Amino acid sequence: MARRKDQIRLGAFLYFTGHHVAAWRHPQAAEGIELEDYVQLARLAEDAKFDMVFLADGVAVRLRNAAAASRKAHSGVTPFEPLTLLSALSAVTRRIGLVGTASTSFSDPFNLARQFASLDRLSGGRAGWNLVTSTDPEAALNFSHTDAIDHGDRYDRAVEFHEVVRGLWNSFEDDAFLRDRASGLYFDPAKVHLLNHEGRHFRVRGPLNVPRSPQGHPVVIQAGASEAGKDLAARSAEAIFAAQVTLEDAVAFYADVKGRLARYGRAPEDVKIMPGIFPVVGRTRDEAQEKFEELQSLIQPEVGLGLISDLTGVDLSSYPLDGPVPTDLPETNGGKSRQALVLDLARREDLTIRQLYLKVAGARGHWQVVGTPTDIADVLQERFEAYGADGFNIMAPLKPSGLVDFISLVVPELRRRGLFRSEYAGQTLREHLGLKFPGHPHARQRVAAE
Amino acid sequence: MARRKDQIRLGAFLYFTGHHVAAWRHPQAAEGIELEDYVQLARLAEDAKFDMVFLADGVAVRLRNAAAASRKAHSGVTPFEPLTLLSALSAVTRRIGLVGTASTSFSDPFNLARQFASLDRLSGGRAGWNLVTSTDPEAALNFSHTDAIDHGDRYDRAVEFHEVVRGLWNSFEDDAFLRDRASGLYFDPAKVHLLNHEGRHFRVRGPLNVPRSPQGHPVVIQAGASEAGKDLAARSAEAIFAAQVTLEDAVAFYADVKGRLARYGRAPEDVKIMPGIFPVVGRTRDEAQEKFEELQSLIQPEVGLGLISDLTGVDLSSYPLDGPVPTDLPETNGGKSRQALVLDLARREDLTIRQLYLKVAGARGHWQVVGTPTDIADVLQERFEAYGADGFNIMAPLKPSGLVDFISLVVPELRRRGLFRSEYAGQTLREHLGLKFPGHPHARQRVAAE
Repeated sequence: MARRKDQIRLGAFLYFTGHHVAAWRHPQAAEGIELEDYVQLARLAEDAKFDMVFLADGVAVRLRNAAAASRKAHSGVTPFEPLTLLSALSAVTRRIGLVGTASTSFSDPFNLARQFASLDRLSGGRAGWNLVTSTDPEAALNFSHTDAIDHGDRYDRAVEFHEVVRGLWNSFEDDAFLRDRASGLYFDPAKVHLLNHEGRHFRVRGPLNVPRSPQGHPVVIQAGASEAGKDLAARSAEAIFAAQVTLEDAVAFYADVKGRLARYGRAPEDVKIMPGIFPVVGRTRDEAQEKFEELQSLIQPEVGLGLISDLTGVDLSSYPLDGPVPTDLPETNGGKSRQALVLDLARREDLTIRQLYLKVAGARGHWQVVGTPTDIADVLQERFEAYGADGFNIMAPLKPSGLVDFISLVVPELRRRGLFRSEYAGQTLREHLGLKFPGHPHARQRVAAE
Repeated sequence: MARRKDQIRLGAFLYFTGHHVAAWRHPQAAEGIELEDYVQLARLAEDAKFDMVFLADGVAVRLRNAAAASRKAHSGVTPFEPLTLLSALSAVTRRIGLVGTASTSFSDPFNLARQFASLDRLSGGRAGWNLVTSTDPEAALNFSHTDAIDHGDRYDRAVEFHEVVRGLWNSFEDDAFLRDRASGLYFDPAKVHLLNHEGRHFRVRGPLNVPRSPQGHPVVIQAGASEAGKDLAARSAEAIFAAQVTLEDAVAFYADVKGRLARYGRAPEDVKIMPGIFPVVGRTRDEAQEKFEELQSLIQPEVGLGLISDLTGVDLSSYPLDGPVPTDLPETNGGKSRQALVLDLARREDLTIRQLYLKVAGARGHWQVVGTPTDIADVLQERFEAYGADGFNIMAPLKPSGLVDFISLVVPELRRRGLFRSEYAGQTLREHLGLKFPGHPHARQRVAAE
């Protein structure tokens, strides 16, 4: 296989006390709940020339298991809402991409399109939208629904939602605003476009009441790994935050998604696939393992069980903690693919329930690597060169030290290997990721000129 | 009447090229479309110790009258969406309040409650929500409605929306987050509260997934002057952006609203009434008048007619421009009180259509004063001391020079008279405005402890 000519892309996935579920209890963990904490991390990632910072999100406190909820920082309570936080960061950073998660299940396409376009302009073209659908039944209860939305319907709505948002982002052509003081024409009415969308879920006339954004539109990112999710991604995503644990699965997923692009008239380079990785970095393997064990020792059993329940939708608290993971579990409505990933892992490695929760606790089902900077650079290089990834979303176990470790120890090793940039080449997130600027598709229906 | 012991509060109502409808055509107008423009103005207002910056908003481009829409900066297109813009400003200002408008007609209470709470925390307690209902039929078309929402229903939804938002803001008690590393308790489950709201418009379980905000909750501001609007304000507003033009009307409105508070268990000082004022300041009256005429001369007839139509809901373009304003116009669904204000003005002063649009063009129906710093300080002092206002929202005609003029010429005069602060006394918007910190009302329903 020929050596790849492009380089690895890196995102810093900020999770407020760190990605390890017990990180908040660690003596070195920052509380990480103030704007200043996020500013510090964003600047750190920017100084290291990362492509983006990335924020996950949900719209509920997970109280189903009250004992677990109150014992972790990951119960769904966030110090800030992502769009407002990223907007604040836009004013105090200059180059790094700002990616926030927002669900199509419980948002409105006009308001969401407008806020992301606004963030794109505030940041000079650095906004990204991680489009997710919501599987959480507790979230549904906050939005006048009585139950979680069915998997199929959720994706149907997501497809239409994305179509509306993309359409609204093209309300004005790039050069629509003349601001011609002499003639008195503020914008060219021939360059503003109604959307006139009429669909199953939405009826939206438009135009969106903000100018077209600096990147044409914000970068659209997705994460779904189910059939419906991969199809939505192939249709609409420009980057994918993937979750495959093994190299084989990663390569298969990569080929699968890239192979679906042609049917939507897209090329393989139009989508960057960036798996999450949970790296525990030590100067020696022993040191890395010690760091990891220290975090693991802080996991409370209530939290471990709650975590399995959150990931798979099944409650294992009535089974013996040191017995096997039962094999006759029902398939749930929420997050099919994530459920399969976690339960497959347990069966493959013949784990007890306790062993399973200890295994997935850190990365919560994502790819976990404990080792030296060389070890970690090796697996990143391997997966990149095998076409299992175009880049990686770094899920530091502990904040801020986990990100500091990765930047000070692993990034220099990647640079020595020619795998990661030393300077930004472009200004926008789209440029960092090597994505094309989307030209305006012109009128769907021209507004009558005067 | 005893001299008032409190001082005037000031807001800087930022309207991107200035409040005068033709401001954008003025040779000194900044385009005002970049974040840096807003940062500059917010810092200017903060250096002058203003209580707040204030952003209006709408969710449609007003295209009904395409000829007018494309000839002004005030067609409903904004460079940024308010919550994202204010969040960006929160990172680069330290003391000034940040007030944004958001409509209860086309937002969701959970998402909106969360974003304002997030802004409050980002800014260290400086957020304010200007709660409006949407009268714009073009906005309705962007949110899967076929028509504007009826006036009564709009207020019914607004009352319930506000109740849900206020309830969600109290999801966690102020001291709910223990973050106790030793015991492993992140938050106290007895201090998180479900809302369990079941109403005509919304069903929301809660809790909101952000901590209680630094001000207890963001300051709630309103503007409605209709009966339903005044009642909603008396029930829920902490500041009112009023629009009365004459001293008599202002004093009557002030007494009316303050008189309604007792029935909701509130005291007169719980609500600050802040009329908008459109001040054209000159060192001499001639200079002020010249500045004003220069702006007036830039108004295009299409824009003038469109403005009347926007303010009153009636289209006068088929009547002679230099004939009288007709008296037999139908009452429209949108903005009853604003319609009455504008048409009453025309009849009282026997204006032609052209004279009417020239008259209201600048302040768009708000209170317009052209004069010297002494003239302007005189009318502010008069209205303040007559209990027609607790403060004022400054609607500078031209940006940035209109705000610069007010700050450099009028503010010093107010200070000489002891009417405006020279330093901030508090940290939060609530403290600037002299509003009480709202204690947590305790459980509606306690979440079961472990």
